[in-house]
Amino acid sequence: MGNIRIKGLVEMLVKSYDEYADIIKVNTNNQLNRSVIIDVLEKLRCLLFPGYFGKKNLKSGSIEYYTGDLLEDVIFNLTRQIAFAIQRWEAFDICEDGIFDKAEELCFAFLEKLPVIREYLDTDVDAAFDGDPAAASKDEIISSYPGLYAILVSRLAHELHILSVPLIPRIMTEHAHSLTGIDIHPGASIGRYFFIDHGTGIVVGETTVIGDHVKLYQGVTLGALSTRGGQLLKNTKRHPTIESHVTIYSGASILGGETVIKEGVVVGSNAFITSSVPEKTKVSIKNPELQYKRDHEPQQSAWEENWYYTI
Amino acid sequence: MGNIRIKGLVEMLVKSYDEYADIIKVNTNNQLNRSVIIDVLEKLRCLLFPGYFGKKNLKSGSIEYYTGDLLEDVIFNLTRQIAFAIQRWEAFDICEDGIFDKAEELCFAFLEKLPVIREYLDTDVDAAFDGDPAAASKDEIISSYPGLYAILVSRLAHELHILSVPLIPRIMTEHAHSLTGIDIHPGASIGRYFFIDHGTGIVVGETTVIGDHVKLYQGVTLGALSTRGGQLLKNTKRHPTIESHVTIYSGASILGGETVIKEGVVVGSNAFITSSVPEKTKVSIKNPELQYKRDHEPQQSAWEENWYYTI
Amino acid sequence: MGNIRIKGLVEMLVKSYDEYADIIKVNTNNQLNRSVIIDVLEKLRCLLFPGYFGKKNLKSGSIEYYTGDLLEDVIFNLTRQIAFAIQRWEAFDICEDGIFDKAEELCFAFLEKLPVIREYLDTDVDAAFDGDPAAASKDEIISSYPGLYAILVSRLAHELHILSVPLIPRIMTEHAHSLTGIDIHPGASIGRYFFIDHGTGIVVGETTVIGDHVKLYQGVTLGALSTRGGQLLKNTKRHPTIESHVTIYSGASILGGETVIKEGVVVGSNAFITSSVPEKTKVSIKNPELQYKRDHEPQQSAWEENWYYTI
Repeated sequence: MGNIRIKGLVEMLVKSYDEYADIIKVNTNNQLNRSVIIDVLEKLRCLLFPGYFGKKNLKSGSIEYYTGDLLEDVIFNLTRQIAFAIQRWEAFDICEDGIFDKAEELCFAFLEKLPVIREYLDTDVDAAFDGDPAAASKDEIISSYPGLYAILVSRLAHELHILSVPLIPRIMTEHAHSLTGIDIHPGASIGRYFFIDHGTGIVVGETTVIGDHVKLYQGVTLGALSTRGGQLLKNTKRHPTIESHVTIYSGASILGGETVIKEGVVVGSNAFITSSVPEKTKVSIKNPELQYKRDHEPQQSAWEENWYYTI
Repeated sequence: MGNIRIKGLVEMLVKSYDEYADIIKVNTNNQLNRSVIIDVLEKLRCLLFPGYFGKKNLKSGSIEYYTGDLLEDVIFNLTRQIAFAIQRWEAFDICEDGIFDKAEELCFAFLEKLPVIREYLDTDVDAAFDGDPAAASKDEIISSYPGLYAILVSRLAHELHILSVPLIPRIMTEHAHSLTGIDIHPGASIGRYFFIDHGTGIVVGETTVIGDHVKLYQGVTLGALSTRGGQLLKNTKRHPTIESHVTIYSGASILGGETVIKEGVVVGSNAFITSSVPEKTKVSIKNPELQYKRDHEPQQSAWEENWYYTI
Repeated sequence: MGNIRIKGLVEMLVKSYDEYADIIKVNTNNQLNRSVIIDVLEKLRCLLFPGYFGKKNLKSGSIEYYTGDLLEDVIFNLTRQIAFAIQRWEAFDICEDGIFDKAEELCFAFLEKLPVIREYLDTDVDAAFDGDPAAASKDEIISSYPGLYAILVSRLAHELHILSVPLIPRIMTEHAHSLTGIDIHPGASIGRYFFIDHGTGIVVGETTVIGDHVKLYQGVTLGALSTRGGQLLKNTKRHPTIESHVTIYSGASILGGETVIKEGVVVGSNAFITSSVPEKTKVSIKNPELQYKRDHEPQQSAWEENWYYTI
């Protein structure tokens, strides 16, 4: 009986595949493999912070072999994934034979940015150490801080985004989002000495521009004023510009493509900002006044009446 | 010496197992296996979006084999997990011999919902593409959007919840919560064209009802007014009803089982709502007034005095 | 050609390794292995909740073998990781030969706390069951609640933190942060019957002290008033004290090392508190007044004009 029921299920599903054909992918040779992309990401992390994440202790005498070995693997796999990704992308109007060469070219152009990314990450580690009294050592930051991981992935994905590689950058940043709760779109451009503390709930939109020495705390949104326009808004600047030496405390929202937070600004917790702020200004909300009610009843049940809260 | 100390540790722990016996599970044959359940979930995703998540490129000529093969595996494993789960559930007053048959029946009843779930997911992909200017393609949404993953898992878990299968639906939604930061209870009922953007921090409670064309942004809570009653509140409607064509912006909380957000409402960021809102209304808070203080000191240290922020 | 380009990349990277030498780790024998530490964590969970997370059904007759077997594995691996961690820590001024003995001593001192941790976890499971009407059973809480997982890891990491073991406690709590969105620093001290519901976005700082019967909801921050001092603030009490029987609802922030939330207090959603609250008080913000605008236009496009929201 089981077999007949399975046959029935198969028929129902195959019928559904025909009916809703834009959420099935058949007869292509270009299936991206998410786990290969994540493996590439881990190997790029090993190349950027050598000796921290591999399984073996790294010796200075063999560092070129280590680097070359990892790079060959990254090149092999990333080139193939880029080839799969660009195959279906209108932006690349190349004959099918040229796809692999184009993918290899993009892969090398990307990897040539690794030394610069490493230079930026060195400043990010400094910013975290200087900014966080709970940081016991730079080792602790490199090996455990989710903010640093999100920044690293974001810097890598941004370079691929600049090269117009589709899909792969977003798969990378969404992997980091999943691990850290920090959602930075690959389009966002970020300066040196960037520090994210705690990080859960942070959203940084596609067209955000961030200067040097910027600090973000948990729950900050750098977003758009309106997305009512949907796809019509594609490629417009919808997200804010944050100049250098700006600190944005937890839960603040800064919205709009014309909003500029000028140099040296400090934004207080939970501020909701939709227009520009002049330089060296502290901007905050008057925190909502607190109401106190004393409990004259011994039981908890009595004094929680009419009390609003969430679960 | 080590051996004696290990023996001592074993004795201490075994003594603790006797003392706190409600957090140990021995002598049962019904151990659920979380990794099997997650593997089933991944295979269900392959069945719902064929060709996107598997390791091989899918060909139209072999799609029935692909579907049948995956289904057999899902049926084998899910039936066993359901059998383990219902064994200990008072709701199923069946003799032990009947458990496996009952489990198989529940498994097939669940799988027969897959085509309808697929139909709903097709509308969810459309809603994400239409609603998000940053969405480059439907492929990008299917392969990387955490909101779509949370919705997919929620739709699957809800069907198991309706069939009164214990534990497994919550293990599924908590897996999605872990990956996405989006916490949707399996009891929540959700209409077509559902779109979650960014998503981190969203909470949707057990008795929430959501219509069609609803959009939620990061940090939204659809919660209960009070949980003081604890277990006494089980099975009461504690969470709101959201009618169709409603958009709820980031950080808003909507609380209470009698709260109805009527058709066409837009709820602004950070609104805190505990009673119903009439149709086609925009409801928002007056955003807290901003205070600006200019810095006349060159050093950052001077003008951050008495400034509140969080780490 | 590929080979020459790879050589070029290797040279550029090796040059960068020399230039930014504080983010490379070479010629040490003390490489911590994050995946070993996470494996130890999983085995500790099996020891604390026996029969719930292993692959086999646990029988009472063999429970000592099960316990001893897991413990031996934990001791072997954790001792090595502790040895690697303390090797580079100034706090341990021991000759290199003594490191392994010191590590073993720390490992046993830690493991002797497991029965007490188990006693506390038993109260945490009770608190979750009593506090959450959606909890169907204690099994559901143990097998799927992210809050309980974060508490478990936090209790383990705190014991290692007390023993001054570097790096490992933070790697453990950041693993839990990644899985749950709940960021509890290993330094935080937490009483019995601790309940975290939903949890995403919670931050509990290093010097926080929490009493018994405390409940936290999603998005709560127990943080510092100012971190401007950076590393100069290390080892000062920067985070609040929460006494017993306190409930803190979603999105509330409580900041400062001198802030004491006294026994029996209830803190409402989104409250922002920077000074102490007397016992048995309900403290809340007056929720921001809501503004309603009816839509007299049939099209959504008309009435969303000038409407602020975030993406």
